[in-house]
Amino acid sequence: MKPRINFVTLGVTDMVAMRAFYERLGLTASSASNPDVTFFDANGIVLALFGYHALAKDAGVSAGPVPAFRGVGVAWNAGSENEVDRIMAQAKSAGGTIKKKAEKVFWGGYSGCFADPEGHLWEVAYNPFMPIDAEGRVQLP
Amino acid sequence: MKPRINFVTLGVTDMVAMRAFYERLGLTASSASNPDVTFFDANGIVLALFGYHALAKDAGVSAGPVPAFRGVGVAWNAGSENEVDRIMAQAKSAGGTIKKKAEKVFWGGYSGCFADPEGHLWEVAYNPFMPIDAEGRVQLP
Repeated sequence: MKPRINFVTLGVTDMVAMRAFYERLGLTASSASNPDVTFFDANGIVLALFGYHALAKDAGVSAGPVPAFRGVGVAWNAGSENEVDRIMAQAKSAGGTIKKKAEKVFWGGYSGCFADPEGHLWEVAYNPFMPIDAEGRVQLP
Repeated sequence: MKPRINFVTLGVTDMVAMRAFYERLGLTASSASNPDVTFFDANGIVLALFGYHALAKDAGVSAGPVPAFRGVGVAWNAGSENEVDRIMAQAKSAGGTIKKKAEKVFWGGYSGCFADPEGHLWEVAYNPFMPIDAEGRVQLP
């Protein structure tokens, strides 16, 4: 069975504020959400918000303090440089923090980075070498 | 424009070992991969491996030491309890660490958790309330 990613779960400390941020970004919470967990459809993959300590407990690991840099990020690929700029502006206006302004990058694309209110990183990229299909999914060579 | 997740990027310190782990798990590296980055198709979402420090630099943030618990996880949803068990066994045999043995959980499903060789967390779950469609995607209510 080929591995697949169905959920990306972000551990959060303020569920109400984080849910509100992602709603301002344009996501709609599923009716399966409750005060302990929020589920958003992020185009066939579920973005879940779950308590930071609850996530550690469920995974059977110890939670230390929330790290400033987690060494994990997600990316939202756009169809043009213009679209990247629009998304970055939307993220800022929703309450995100611009970590790197969108710019042309060495590999030939155009990308920027924002953090959500608890520091989870989102890259927003236009990659001319990895086209996006009609369903909004990146096609890998 | 509705937000979507196209990539999940894991910051790694040993690219060769981590690529080999995910290949043993059953993923095939895209020809777009190179020594600095590995791309896997994880059913329409790209799982990317990228240097831990390079990821921080690209995102415009400072990297501290690699955190033991990152407060982020991904999930692979299976079609049955039996399938969860098979995936957990496959992850262990590929070199993953079982953090929580698969078991029935309070919300009515069945799940376990493993970590890859650098501690990135994977939940493997069977959720009878969130069916998986023919394309292997979770349908949220």
